[in-house]
Amino acid sequence: MSNSYGHLFKITTFGESHGVAIGVIIDGCPAGLEWDLEFIQNALDRRKPGQSAIVTQRKETDLVQVLSGIFENKTTGTPIALLIPNEDAKSKDYAHIATQFRPSHADYTYFAKYGNRDYRGGGRSSARETAARVAAGAVAQLFLQKKYQINITAYTSQVGHLKLEKNYKNLDFSFIENTPVRCPDIEMANKMEQFIKEIKKQGDTIGGVISVLITNVPAGWGEPVFDKLHAELGKAMLSINAAKGFEYGSGFEGVTMKGSEHNDVFYVDENEKISTKTNFSGGIQGGISNGEDIYFRVAFKPVATIIQPQESINESKEKVIVEGKGRHDPCVLPRAVPIVEAMAALVLADFALRSETNRFNFEKN
Amino acid sequence: MSNSYGHLFKITTFGESHGVAIGVIIDGCPAGLEWDLEFIQNALDRRKPGQSAIVTQRKETDLVQVLSGIFENKTTGTPIALLIPNEDAKSKDYAHIATQFRPSHADYTYFAKYGNRDYRGGGRSSARETAARVAAGAVAQLFLQKKYQINITAYTSQVGHLKLEKNYKNLDFSFIENTPVRCPDIEMANKMEQFIKEIKKQGDTIGGVISVLITNVPAGWGEPVFDKLHAELGKAMLSINAAKGFEYGSGFEGVTMKGSEHNDVFYVDENEKISTKTNFSGGIQGGISNGEDIYFRVAFKPVATIIQPQESINESKEKVIVEGKGRHDPCVLPRAVPIVEAMAALVLADFALRSETNRFNFEKN
Amino acid sequence: MSNSYGHLFKITTFGESHGVAIGVIIDGCPAGLEWDLEFIQNALDRRKPGQSAIVTQRKETDLVQVLSGIFENKTTGTPIALLIPNEDAKSKDYAHIATQFRPSHADYTYFAKYGNRDYRGGGRSSARETAARVAAGAVAQLFLQKKYQINITAYTSQVGHLKLEKNYKNLDFSFIENTPVRCPDIEMANKMEQFIKEIKKQGDTIGGVISVLITNVPAGWGEPVFDKLHAELGKAMLSINAAKGFEYGSGFEGVTMKGSEHNDVFYVDENEKISTKTNFSGGIQGGISNGEDIYFRVAFKPVATIIQPQESINESKEKVIVEGKGRHDPCVLPRAVPIVEAMAALVLADFALRSETNRFNFEKN
Amino acid sequence: MSNSYGHLFKITTFGESHGVAIGVIIDGCPAGLEWDLEFIQNALDRRKPGQSAIVTQRKETDLVQVLSGIFENKTTGTPIALLIPNEDAKSKDYAHIATQFRPSHADYTYFAKYGNRDYRGGGRSSARETAARVAAGAVAQLFLQKKYQINITAYTSQVGHLKLEKNYKNLDFSFIENTPVRCPDIEMANKMEQFIKEIKKQGDTIGGVISVLITNVPAGWGEPVFDKLHAELGKAMLSINAAKGFEYGSGFEGVTMKGSEHNDVFYVDENEKISTKTNFSGGIQGGISNGEDIYFRVAFKPVATIIQPQESINESKEKVIVEGKGRHDPCVLPRAVPIVEAMAALVLADFALRSETNRFNFEKN
Repeated sequence: MSNSYGHLFKITTFGESHGVAIGVIIDGCPAGLEWDLEFIQNALDRRKPGQSAIVTQRKETDLVQVLSGIFENKTTGTPIALLIPNEDAKSKDYAHIATQFRPSHADYTYFAKYGNRDYRGGGRSSARETAARVAAGAVAQLFLQKKYQINITAYTSQVGHLKLEKNYKNLDFSFIENTPVRCPDIEMANKMEQFIKEIKKQGDTIGGVISVLITNVPAGWGEPVFDKLHAELGKAMLSINAAKGFEYGSGFEGVTMKGSEHNDVFYVDENEKISTKTNFSGGIQGGISNGEDIYFRVAFKPVATIIQPQESINESKEKVIVEGKGRHDPCVLPRAVPIVEAMAALVLADFALRSETNRFNFEKN
Repeated sequence: MSNSYGHLFKITTFGESHGVAIGVIIDGCPAGLEWDLEFIQNALDRRKPGQSAIVTQRKETDLVQVLSGIFENKTTGTPIALLIPNEDAKSKDYAHIATQFRPSHADYTYFAKYGNRDYRGGGRSSARETAARVAAGAVAQLFLQKKYQINITAYTSQVGHLKLEKNYKNLDFSFIENTPVRCPDIEMANKMEQFIKEIKKQGDTIGGVISVLITNVPAGWGEPVFDKLHAELGKAMLSINAAKGFEYGSGFEGVTMKGSEHNDVFYVDENEKISTKTNFSGGIQGGISNGEDIYFRVAFKPVATIIQPQESINESKEKVIVEGKGRHDPCVLPRAVPIVEAMAALVLADFALRSETNRFNFEKN
Repeated sequence: MSNSYGHLFKITTFGESHGVAIGVIIDGCPAGLEWDLEFIQNALDRRKPGQSAIVTQRKETDLVQVLSGIFENKTTGTPIALLIPNEDAKSKDYAHIATQFRPSHADYTYFAKYGNRDYRGGGRSSARETAARVAAGAVAQLFLQKKYQINITAYTSQVGHLKLEKNYKNLDFSFIENTPVRCPDIEMANKMEQFIKEIKKQGDTIGGVISVLITNVPAGWGEPVFDKLHAELGKAMLSINAAKGFEYGSGFEGVTMKGSEHNDVFYVDENEKISTKTNFSGGIQGGISNGEDIYFRVAFKPVATIIQPQESINESKEKVIVEGKGRHDPCVLPRAVPIVEAMAALVLADFALRSETNRFNFEKN
Repeated sequence: MSNSYGHLFKITTFGESHGVAIGVIIDGCPAGLEWDLEFIQNALDRRKPGQSAIVTQRKETDLVQVLSGIFENKTTGTPIALLIPNEDAKSKDYAHIATQFRPSHADYTYFAKYGNRDYRGGGRSSARETAARVAAGAVAQLFLQKKYQINITAYTSQVGHLKLEKNYKNLDFSFIENTPVRCPDIEMANKMEQFIKEIKKQGDTIGGVISVLITNVPAGWGEPVFDKLHAELGKAMLSINAAKGFEYGSGFEGVTMKGSEHNDVFYVDENEKISTKTNFSGGIQGGISNGEDIYFRVAFKPVATIIQPQESINESKEKVIVEGKGRHDPCVLPRAVPIVEAMAALVLADFALRSETNRFNFEKN
């Protein structure tokens, strides 16, 4: 179960960092959706290693193969299997840590859970698994865009202490892809890029925050009790490697506000749409979308792999020095942007389908 | 599906604020657990209304009835149904808002989703639903304490701008229940209490933060990909009414740290237990517990119901003035403490059961 | 998990034969369905004990209470909790078998599984649990009738060696409720009734077969691989106490046919509906409904409780003589008819909802 | 959801008859199970086409590729992805039926459900999908054999009117693989083979029955209410292409018995094991295994594809003549034997894992 996400638009991923391939099965994508392989490949290209000087230099083309579920360029309602072969796995880089537990990695916890583990590149715990999510998420985005005109945009809003204070309404998202850090404010983006390069030179890593905006979600999506829309978004974001926190709408800062300040007053806008004057709710009330912009933030810790010797222990509980080798990201943020978008799309596609059966509705038949 | 939580230790809740009763079915609690009704009632008493001057004055005894699943004072492995009758529902208080959408409540979103709604006291969207969670969570806590000696402690660490800066290691949790706000630092607790009383006098409300510590979780709990331990904790917390954010371990603050500072170095302690020197990971690595303390924080917005007139609209899209009536909490935090503990217990009980089948293990048979 | 059925129209039952009550939560019933308590009570009355001389004489009114989910006589989309108190539980009848394993009951297997058990009246394994299914199934039937005009009719077609050979097309279903055995052929019904009375006089029991016809199911319901429509029907029927076999369409007899005889030829009928000339498929092809009548048969074994002394063993592996006491059914068939209908309705209601998201369909929005 | 089976030992299959490949992901197989690729390939070889003169002559090597989940020849607890490329798909054989609905196939129902379909070789509805089940089932069998010494044996017990009347206790299963029909009685096997050859010569097809015996299942597996062991076995069997009926233990014939004849009397055998003198229960009581042999029968209809012209209609509702082409099985039974075994293994592996959390059990920790 742990490798599946979604109730109706459901994905199951598989594969290890240094195995034959990684991949994903999408089960539940409605039939008749026009296929767009280029769109999916483009999402993968934004996540793939080696795309700039501030990410890992592992060389993967990440070309996606479609094994099933598409016929005459349309989805058929049957499972869509997508495969991404591993090409540049350098497993020898990891032989020296075969029995060592790298600090703040999943080496020890996998060992504690399973009794054995594929230590090569972190095996299943590697962020390489997220390529499968990005591929599946792109299919979800296709569905959301074509059926509901929903747009999901993520961007780097903080790297270390460098924080973009501007509200999303004052940003031009068309700049996001103009810099390798994926921050829409070019001045801040350049600072962040420089900072990451310095950190990299030190053989060190740094954390940051990704902000997300989702527009055009209809009112009425989300489930009232446990599967609240923001609860599923939170779970989905926190399931991404290195994520440490999630907040939506007013978030942690909103706790200092009074109810009279925080409440979002309803009005009817010029298009007869029910709207709110403010949006501290972040587009979600009672766990259900209200038709306003949905926005949230995700915190990412500094990557655990550093190119510095570190104390640790091995499986025999002996002291060891872990030497940093392999090719790694000094900062996870730039490549996390498409992953965050993918997970948000998977959450929404699932709720889109779940929302179809809310009401007894004679007119439909 | 939306009214169930858990895969193996699974609960399903039902009931509205002003209906006959609320309740919960627990499906999957192992057989042979010694029953302790007093323990469960005590958890409910900590959540119930009217317990102090700073919470809602609705009068509910919240006495829990056991309908099934217990025989000769032990669980039998069959579903445990718990019922909590509603006694003091004053539905007339709500007649005036039958067709109005109260700002930042779930009135509009339920209407958008379902086309109709039980407007009395918020119906299903009322926090009264959480009494069912607390009852079920207490059963989960019984299980976790008796089988694993796990302790879960939540406390109010922030109310509005009043923030307790002390680390949990410097707090004496035995003081938590000594004040109505449930903050273990008595000086801060008194300040918070005063502040909430002032807010209440203004007919207003205020938000805050709850901090949680969980000790004695064995290494190896949690699932590696989507159902990471912290992702499920995050979902569970965000599913609580009024929750706006979740962070664990170093959280949002950790993003400014370097990997070399943030990594938790492994060592073997005096009891031959594998431990870490620091714990920025918050007891979870790669989504799986590592045997260290698990700690996290949950942000709660100010309650939406205020005793002040507010602009809004009704179902016919006409402008209305919503008058604040009914009995409500000026601050959700004091009563949210047992709810947070309950949800944490439900997450852990589920992972406890899920962890039983990780390994092929001849010795077991 | 074991106490829930359905993916989108989902029920969870609870309660033991001699506990406080039995009940069910329905989660996922669409909002806006007009409520009809009389319809539900009527289904329960058809299942309840004491309704005729050929069923158990336990006295239960089986009056259903609605705890949640209904407002202003409509479903609200929130969980519908239904409660049926136990009134005439005579637990003392069971004290003598507290540690004994009755032959062909679930006493031993529950003990093997859970290590303890509520022995009073079979506890959770009692067919009393099916009252909860009947209540929930009636809600499903309401939904299917009002939205799709689907009719589900079950009847007793065999008791012991007395087998009704007529095809359902030659039967008048309006006679079903005219006799206590619920067989639409009055002559056969009378024979069956006499036979059951004789069996009862002997302190013995007898098995039989229930046949089912479902009309008006639209083409396109069911899932192609594991959750085939007939596979879920089969599971649902086999989950009923005492069921031993399931066959649909041509069933076991069809194995002797050749493909050229068995294939159902398509044609377009006078209403431009795609139909088949024969219907050996039983209305289901490739696991998906084709718009023809769905029909199937369910075999039930003789009830295990007989009023005769039987050899057995107890929990200490000692030989014992089990004395038949309590009030029991000499033949399960008459009361199983509404249970079979209820389970069929639950399967179809679930597939009705699941079928809503098969296609990407711009027109819907 | 429709393409997954199992709660804890869970598989998801994908792929079409004439696509790139078919495959399966196994999620939840415990870590540390010794891998045996030869065992898996052997199961696939028993199912593969072209193995004898009485099955389809499509040429597929069905060589399985392992994409993930295995490291140093052991399972790691992470998803096991298995891929079987399609090699001999002759899609041109199907061009003539692109818009036609073949009688008693899934052509029309897929079209009704999805609005489009991959018509080549039946697409997803082809029994080729079962190769993925056989591969996954073999992994389940490995697990069951190594951990519990469970054996699952299926065999052809009826072809058309040719029925093997012998009880399984009087059969020598070592003969099953000696004939292409997989019937352990050589004389009967030869008759069946001859009969199938005659049917084939006529361009026709014939149905039959497969019988199954499972030994060594511990007492206590299965869930009491909806997920009864036999209900899940029934669903799993009925989900196999062409299955029309399922019965276990005394089955349909048992309905003519009296309770006093049918009840299985408990005794303690010479090894102090609790046993029953007869086994009409088929090893399952109250939905839970009792430690006796589990046995059941599955009915299969004649294959729908015949090499004879048949009347039908096309997507435009016009009359057409469907010409039988392609390479097909005159009788599904011989190749269904390993499929039935695979599905039984998947059911049992899932219940094996589910049974681990039945009891609160201090000794385990």
